[in-house]
Amino acid sequence: MSRIKATGLAHKVMDAAQAAALFTNGMVVGASGFTKSGDSKAVLAALADRAAKEDIKITLITGASLGQDTDARLANAHGLHKRMPFQADPVLRKHINNGEVLFIDQHLSESVELLHNHYIPQLDIAVIEAALITEDGSIVPTTSVGNSASFALMAKKLIIEINTVVPESIQGIHDIFVPDDYPHRNSIPVNVPDARVGTTTIKIQPDKVAAIVYTAVQDSPADIVPPDAKTEAIAGHLIKFFEAEVAAGRLTNSLLPVQAGIGKVANAVLNGFRKGHFADLTMYSEVLQDSTFDLIDAGKLRFASGSSITVSAECYDRVVNNLDHYREKIVLRPQNISNAPGVIRRLGVIAINTAIEFDMYGNVNSTHIGGTHIMNGIGGSGDFARNAYLSIFVTQAASKNDTISHVLPMVSHVDHNEHDVDILVTDVGLADLRGLAPRERAKVIIANCAHPYYRDALQDYFDRACAQRGGQTPHLLEEAFSWHVRLRERGTMKG
Amino acid sequence: MSRIKATGLAHKVMDAAQAAALFTNGMVVGASGFTKSGDSKAVLAALADRAAKEDIKITLITGASLGQDTDARLANAHGLHKRMPFQADPVLRKHINNGEVLFIDQHLSESVELLHNHYIPQLDIAVIEAALITEDGSIVPTTSVGNSASFALMAKKLIIEINTVVPESIQGIHDIFVPDDYPHRNSIPVNVPDARVGTTTIKIQPDKVAAIVYTAVQDSPADIVPPDAKTEAIAGHLIKFFEAEVAAGRLTNSLLPVQAGIGKVANAVLNGFRKGHFADLTMYSEVLQDSTFDLIDAGKLRFASGSSITVSAECYDRVVNNLDHYREKIVLRPQNISNAPGVIRRLGVIAINTAIEFDMYGNVNSTHIGGTHIMNGIGGSGDFARNAYLSIFVTQAASKNDTISHVLPMVSHVDHNEHDVDILVTDVGLADLRGLAPRERAKVIIANCAHPYYRDALQDYFDRACAQRGGQTPHLLEEAFSWHVRLRERGTMKG
Repeated sequence: MSRIKATGLAHKVMDAAQAAALFTNGMVVGASGFTKSGDSKAVLAALADRAAKEDIKITLITGASLGQDTDARLANAHGLHKRMPFQADPVLRKHINNGEVLFIDQHLSESVELLHNHYIPQLDIAVIEAALITEDGSIVPTTSVGNSASFALMAKKLIIEINTVVPESIQGIHDIFVPDDYPHRNSIPVNVPDARVGTTTIKIQPDKVAAIVYTAVQDSPADIVPPDAKTEAIAGHLIKFFEAEVAAGRLTNSLLPVQAGIGKVANAVLNGFRKGHFADLTMYSEVLQDSTFDLIDAGKLRFASGSSITVSAECYDRVVNNLDHYREKIVLRPQNISNAPGVIRRLGVIAINTAIEFDMYGNVNSTHIGGTHIMNGIGGSGDFARNAYLSIFVTQAASKNDTISHVLPMVSHVDHNEHDVDILVTDVGLADLRGLAPRERAKVIIANCAHPYYRDALQDYFDRACAQRGGQTPHLLEEAFSWHVRLRERGTMKG
Repeated sequence: MSRIKATGLAHKVMDAAQAAALFTNGMVVGASGFTKSGDSKAVLAALADRAAKEDIKITLITGASLGQDTDARLANAHGLHKRMPFQADPVLRKHINNGEVLFIDQHLSESVELLHNHYIPQLDIAVIEAALITEDGSIVPTTSVGNSASFALMAKKLIIEINTVVPESIQGIHDIFVPDDYPHRNSIPVNVPDARVGTTTIKIQPDKVAAIVYTAVQDSPADIVPPDAKTEAIAGHLIKFFEAEVAAGRLTNSLLPVQAGIGKVANAVLNGFRKGHFADLTMYSEVLQDSTFDLIDAGKLRFASGSSITVSAECYDRVVNNLDHYREKIVLRPQNISNAPGVIRRLGVIAINTAIEFDMYGNVNSTHIGGTHIMNGIGGSGDFARNAYLSIFVTQAASKNDTISHVLPMVSHVDHNEHDVDILVTDVGLADLRGLAPRERAKVIIANCAHPYYRDALQDYFDRACAQRGGQTPHLLEEAFSWHVRLRERGTMKG
């Protein structure tokens, strides 16, 4: 019981099934967890078990995606009415796309705004994973902060999961800053990536604590996919681009604070920074990945700010066993701070995110397959792309034996429009769109990014659109989605 | 000559033709002017005269749209190579859409960012309208600030147009705050709409002044279109909505700082605030319009922050002759401050902007007719919609004898996606999309906003898309633009 330092709370300890009994049908629940880190390990699982047997559905709001197959278990048990702001689970995705679970795909900086504004009903219960409860009755989060601080503040009741595999020495890694309420909000005083502007713990009201549940389960590990030829090509184009920017005097060897989406391209790019003259790099990102810690260990990365640590099992041990080493080099912030538009713009972040597809004018689809089916969600890509110093999107030029082109006449769903996209990269090459009007963008994107098989067809569409329709953004609307339609009907975009 | 208080500058006075001779082909030019206010009255016109006779083309960057038919004159004289970040001129629009002038449609907060980042070449010349040059050699802007402060700072040479119809007493209306350069930018300390955080004049380097030109020409007046039945209906729905929000306790009678796009709907809504219990209102907007001053005079509006004063001839006289009365009630800021994402979010702005069309999931097209031809530009709507407390878009349900539905299966161009849109209003009614997933949004938008003639067809499309495809955002891609195609081919969207 030594993880509960505050007096008067020990009697709240119960098992997960008992805590799960506190939920009733229709409740709005906030839960910790951001890209599989610092999420509920026991209570939501026990709730899924209940939902499998009785008619109970909740609205579940998290930081971002959960681990432990929790989303799959809840979805399979028909325990979810509505889910936000992000998910990355194949089973839940199926339930969303068939219309059973309502999914609100939100900018990750905004969920707390919507709660503050009362656009979402007040949270009935918040479930927060913690490393310990301190003497003054505040909680120390674990491997993510996400929305936990605001959830704890705004929920009617609190269930705390104390995870004993996370050492108590994680205290001090977090920087909890909570903006005041309207109409007199303070500005967020983060002017450099390593600014510490808040407290190291989350203040709670002890009388709201409804249950404390002990767990001892490690975060689900990140899926580390080894780089392939395409990934290496994309990373290569980007590293070359950064070197040219340094040579041109627009950036120094320290670049500017980097944000990188999750996945193998981001890892490959970050690994690329280990070579060459890059030095004293910083990150202002969401997720601290394996490559983040590798860059720190290589002496290349001076400081990394994020909202979660999402790493492989090997890296997890390295981080958790060397917290004193990393303590001065990383910070975990609430996601409305890590993703705050004003801070991202002020710091001049270099944002690198993954696209599902983009079009010849530079509009990006990050979320929908075939214009209809959600993959994961927009996540923080909009927070960063809109406000970044450099907004970069990467994807492969073509996939599935080149039957799918990821560079298209028109994207089937727009998450980021051309106003917010500076650089596009595929394994074929890099398109630098800065200072270009739409018709100029089309030429560069087709020439530099499209797979050779599809290049002529794109050019042909563009030429006919210019000749037959014209306009700021020439298109043939009756044909704009013909590539997607062909893929659906014939299994290939090839004409 | 008394408008030049600084010594050593009087010899720079010349006429507009002489100043226009300073430009050479290919130059990048920054000019003051925001929604027809505070723009160049003489030098750009003289440059157009030159361009009509010789081969000279410039890249022209302004605050926003210009008055005095300057854009039309430059376009007709083939004097424009590239234009950004906004325009609202029918002649220039024609030259853009036929591909002769390259137009970069930018978020109004971002042009200065792009200059700072060197994505646009350094300005060769900045042309800034001023009321006077002070003793310490700084300039007092006139009826807009726009990008003038940063242009003056960053241009190689400066041409100042001193407009003597603007009284010197306009000094003090402006609040000039310029963020530092990367990587150590300060935060923008605007925490309330009436914060004054900068200087009242724009600092310049006297040795950069290449010419001073005297003018005495009033701003082109705003087009005040009297409200019609549809406008009144839209304003009525919105006022009723705000009253309900106050009744529900989510807003007080003072609401939150209001931003309203330019035009008759905005004027009608603001006029609607004169009735009822609204009190102590504030604005944090771009353009201070007739209705802004009417609301101030009615004692309803306590303070208005903007980047320009764009009013009718009648209102212009009222403002200019009563500057001492309005001085404590208004402020004009640089547009990277009036439109700063972090400030807009922090203040909790209520943003009301006009759509060309929106779709049943809440995606908004603000810029393109038929998916190809630019109308004006995105302007500040993206800065506000993304970060607002309430993001509201308005349009008529149908137009041109109801042959065009403005509520569609899919918009032909996406400027604002469903993540950024809370409330949609047409003359038919209001759709409150807060807390709704896409399939829920479709039901509310079709039921509340669509013109009755098109309602069944929208519902039918939605039902078939759900049944045949499903997904987070059900669509039939092969049919998604069929309404636009029908309009182009047959002159009507009616099936």
